[in-house]
Amino acid sequence: MNLSKIAIIGPGLLGGSIALALRKKCPETQVAVWARREEAVEEVLARLIADTASSRLEPVVRDASLVVLCVPIGSMPPLALQLAPLLDPATLVTDVGSVKGPVVEALAPIFENRARFVGSHPMAGSERTGLSAASADLFDGSVCIVTPGESPDRGTLEAVEKFWTLLGCRVAALSPSEHDRVIAEVSHLPHLLAAAMVNLVCEHNPDSLNFCGNGFRDTTRVASGSAVMWTEILRENRGPLKKTVEAMIEKLREVVDILEADDEARMRQFLTAAKNERDRIKARN
Amino acid sequence: MNLSKIAIIGPGLLGGSIALALRKKCPETQVAVWARREEAVEEVLARLIADTASSRLEPVVRDASLVVLCVPIGSMPPLALQLAPLLDPATLVTDVGSVKGPVVEALAPIFENRARFVGSHPMAGSERTGLSAASADLFDGSVCIVTPGESPDRGTLEAVEKFWTLLGCRVAALSPSEHDRVIAEVSHLPHLLAAAMVNLVCEHNPDSLNFCGNGFRDTTRVASGSAVMWTEILRENRGPLKKTVEAMIEKLREVVDILEADDEARMRQFLTAAKNERDRIKARN
Repeated sequence: MNLSKIAIIGPGLLGGSIALALRKKCPETQVAVWARREEAVEEVLARLIADTASSRLEPVVRDASLVVLCVPIGSMPPLALQLAPLLDPATLVTDVGSVKGPVVEALAPIFENRARFVGSHPMAGSERTGLSAASADLFDGSVCIVTPGESPDRGTLEAVEKFWTLLGCRVAALSPSEHDRVIAEVSHLPHLLAAAMVNLVCEHNPDSLNFCGNGFRDTTRVASGSAVMWTEILRENRGPLKKTVEAMIEKLREVVDILEADDEARMRQFLTAAKNERDRIKARN
Repeated sequence: MNLSKIAIIGPGLLGGSIALALRKKCPETQVAVWARREEAVEEVLARLIADTASSRLEPVVRDASLVVLCVPIGSMPPLALQLAPLLDPATLVTDVGSVKGPVVEALAPIFENRARFVGSHPMAGSERTGLSAASADLFDGSVCIVTPGESPDRGTLEAVEKFWTLLGCRVAALSPSEHDRVIAEVSHLPHLLAAAMVNLVCEHNPDSLNFCGNGFRDTTRVASGSAVMWTEILRENRGPLKKTVEAMIEKLREVVDILEADDEARMRQFLTAAKNERDRIKARN
């Protein structure tokens, strides 16, 4: 994979962290950043996050071997329409959107025959957002899911996988729809549960928060994430997510049954199954 | 409050941490530990966690101004029955059980006229258990809820509050039943949700755990707690907990409605309310 120049579209938490990680791990690579606002362009340059930065797309993507879309999901299609005519058909393009079905469906036709596109979802966000939270180490040890479409080009897929590996990610491939189902369960459901739990407690009695310990703190940490960003993420994935929340309601009905019956054996079984699986995650990291 | 000798009944995570915290913060205090098993007595002595230790109650509690029950909730009443005749009526007694209604109901009559009892719940557990996880700093900055009964003795309450403050806790007082309702929401519900979420994901496809990020990790961390201990805790509080889980199911139905209607404004409102309240916790600590 040619790493002479990489273009990053949008210097938020993820875009900024990709730039910083490249400067640390591939100091030879020229990093170019596009930002919509001039102040953001100036901040990128002032903080030495990229070699070049501009609010115009053309100079940023010119001669880039890889273009990474790091803007909110809703802004991707209009930007892709502006981008596509500027690219060489050999240019790799990927994105960092956390929902993949709708993104791939929108972007793949735009880039068809104009660039080599495959979607990505680096799972390295945090409840903080923006360039100020960016870090060269954000991706170290995190998982990045790449989402090839129905007839993926092997070379394109491998090149994008290599890029994320270089940044410190463990990479796995899933179809866009399988990605969205899995992410509904392991990312969007935790966010909704955290928010629902905070709301439940506070509607009852906000003073109860004075009594929360580490368990509540950990379990609800993600609820501090940007409400605007998460509203968009959850809406984009509302189909798979609705099914997941309904499955969770069923699980909680099972819990109510166990409590009602005061069924010690079933409660222990329920908690033991969860502990054993959760310990597998702990052991792995 | 007389701190010349304090007796700790049960050297687990909490009992061991109380002993270590006393040795660090009140080096003049004589710390005596009771353990059921001789090996545990030997471990306490070998690790210099207490000045004296024994598997017999009498020498441990003799001349103690405060006795702290740190055994599992189910073991408290039989131990209290053995303890009560050994105590001077001026002796303070408290416990560390994480459910207070049933504990206070069982212990208060046993200690009536035989010691000065008031329940406590130091919210400083972790998913680790046992003496090996004990730490002198476990209580620093944590909350301890003391639960006076209907006609509390001011002096007793203040002395027990002072003890926990000394160990590093912020102390608050709630009635036993109010404690159990609040704890169902801020401690037991998070545990059940974490376990339910892990089970949901793994029943569907255990490989999904390969794709979990920090959100899932934080939200499910407590599910690694001891299944045996938590089965007991959740069962003891099953009345208030059942109501809380039912309220959570209602909240999730609200979420399903929002997703079904693709109601952007309501979703943002739901997430914003949660974020604002969750940020209050973050700001405070």
